[in-house]
Amino acid sequence: MGGDFGPDVVVPAAFKALSRHPELNLILVGQETVIEQAIQAQKKTSERLSIHHATEIVGMDELPSQALRGKKDSSMRVAINLVKEGTAQACVSAGNTGALMATARFVLKMLPGIDRPAICTTLPTIEGHTHVLDLGANVDSDAQTLLEFAVMGAALTSAANNQHQPTIGLLNIGEEEIKGNERVKEAARLLGNSHLNYIGYVEGDGIFKGAADVIVCDGFVGNVMLKTTEGVAKMISYYMKQEFKRNPLTLLAGLIAMPVLKAFKKRIDPREYNGASLLGLQGIVIKSHGSADAYSFATAISEAVLEVKKDVPTRITRVLEGQVAERQTS
Amino acid sequence: MGGDFGPDVVVPAAFKALSRHPELNLILVGQETVIEQAIQAQKKTSERLSIHHATEIVGMDELPSQALRGKKDSSMRVAINLVKEGTAQACVSAGNTGALMATARFVLKMLPGIDRPAICTTLPTIEGHTHVLDLGANVDSDAQTLLEFAVMGAALTSAANNQHQPTIGLLNIGEEEIKGNERVKEAARLLGNSHLNYIGYVEGDGIFKGAADVIVCDGFVGNVMLKTTEGVAKMISYYMKQEFKRNPLTLLAGLIAMPVLKAFKKRIDPREYNGASLLGLQGIVIKSHGSADAYSFATAISEAVLEVKKDVPTRITRVLEGQVAERQTS
Repeated sequence: MGGDFGPDVVVPAAFKALSRHPELNLILVGQETVIEQAIQAQKKTSERLSIHHATEIVGMDELPSQALRGKKDSSMRVAINLVKEGTAQACVSAGNTGALMATARFVLKMLPGIDRPAICTTLPTIEGHTHVLDLGANVDSDAQTLLEFAVMGAALTSAANNQHQPTIGLLNIGEEEIKGNERVKEAARLLGNSHLNYIGYVEGDGIFKGAADVIVCDGFVGNVMLKTTEGVAKMISYYMKQEFKRNPLTLLAGLIAMPVLKAFKKRIDPREYNGASLLGLQGIVIKSHGSADAYSFATAISEAVLEVKKDVPTRITRVLEGQVAERQTS
Repeated sequence: MGGDFGPDVVVPAAFKALSRHPELNLILVGQETVIEQAIQAQKKTSERLSIHHATEIVGMDELPSQALRGKKDSSMRVAINLVKEGTAQACVSAGNTGALMATARFVLKMLPGIDRPAICTTLPTIEGHTHVLDLGANVDSDAQTLLEFAVMGAALTSAANNQHQPTIGLLNIGEEEIKGNERVKEAARLLGNSHLNYIGYVEGDGIFKGAADVIVCDGFVGNVMLKTTEGVAKMISYYMKQEFKRNPLTLLAGLIAMPVLKAFKKRIDPREYNGASLLGLQGIVIKSHGSADAYSFATAISEAVLEVKKDVPTRITRVLEGQVAERQTS
């Protein structure tokens, strides 16, 4: 029921995801009549699609604590309960991020050894892509927390890329008098002593050069970085459109260049990267962008399918246990 | 002598700046013979250009403390001395940022009421531009320091834009459970009680939407944001070139669209925004990007010209005094 468009986006996205993944079953959680209407509007049916009724809806601006205490029959809460009881293997939501995180943490609990969830997403790089975390679940993260992010990022990235030891970079500032802050310096020491494939500091521009498979940072910094990426990409698109719309000649040039511009646009399309993982929970929860369209929301469902197939929570535990085992023997 | 190219860039940039600003006189500080050679290579002369010899050079990777204590006859130190003694009205350098900051702070001293310098630059927005600080001079900035950044940013922006009360935004994260950290929340309170035109929180994407004339943030966050901007812009340019180079047809489309693509490129050209201000000093010091070319370095000189004409240090003191006066009467 969440996000900017509710079932009008989630239902068509569900059909897209079902046709993409023949092994997938989807339970649409929310107000039954509203969901049924949205399904009828699609003029499609599927035996792999079912509805689970939930009476309440968490508002996009609602306080997480209110949603957690006050709305026990919200679509969000009920969907996470389905994961807890094993009826569903993952939950995908475009709803209120804070409420989703608080509810998921309360219902599913954290994995042993992980203190708080972290938000991780994929970002494009010049020749591929990278995973970045945390993107806003934690502010003022200390060195130990940054190490936990690295463990979780390594587990997810090894699953997503079929890669044994993904490289880990620590986001830092490079040129200035004080190179980084104390927390980052201490995290670098912890990472250097860990069994992770730590490659050192990465600066903001290094993310997009593909400097590391996993980029670790505090959630405040990561959130600003992510939103900056969105802002710059939108501004550049806007400039380009303006230049092509300047006069009949530039419009004609734009028409001729259209196939190229479309191919280019697809490469920076944020819809290809929708679906952030809430890592560190005893269960899989994927957060879609609130403004996602059906194509984009289906990408988030695909992320859930991947994480279920690869059993990311167990992988996180294993990487963490390797870490602990190493600490005990060293 | 600093930057990636030394006099080979600074000297042609000096001639560009002299022709742009008829009232400008430039003193090139550094190794006389090297500078003279670079001038001869330009096959130009100007009565408004002179050389001031300095024997040493600060390396780009040298520790600021070493440069400060060990190289008293470096081009950087001598140039800042010229500002101190009143021979020059501003110093422009493409050298080691940390050393420049430490030396400027040591020689020129801070303005009364300002604790540490902040680095401020202009960034493009959808319909104009914005000033952002700090970009890396300070990490873990507390609320009072963020307020000082706002004061300095307001003074510089009012000078640059001929604007009475520029709007001030505080960079924050918006969507998550914990909205911001304690320092940012406290800074919002201080800004709300100040006489500055504070408009509230701005998220990373808001910077490029032109949400505020001045964006205030901690230097760690600001540096990551700035480098991210560079990284995303470069990645997008790279993608676009790749798409236009895909085959003879796309190459042809690129040729036809070339004038539009050039106009577009000019709008996102970082050379148009070169020249970061080291604010809060008793003097004007401008930092050019180390990899700047002559066009770009000339932009940094223009920034110095602007700040001299508008007497930005005095403006900062005035905004600060207004702030203090208000606190005393309230």
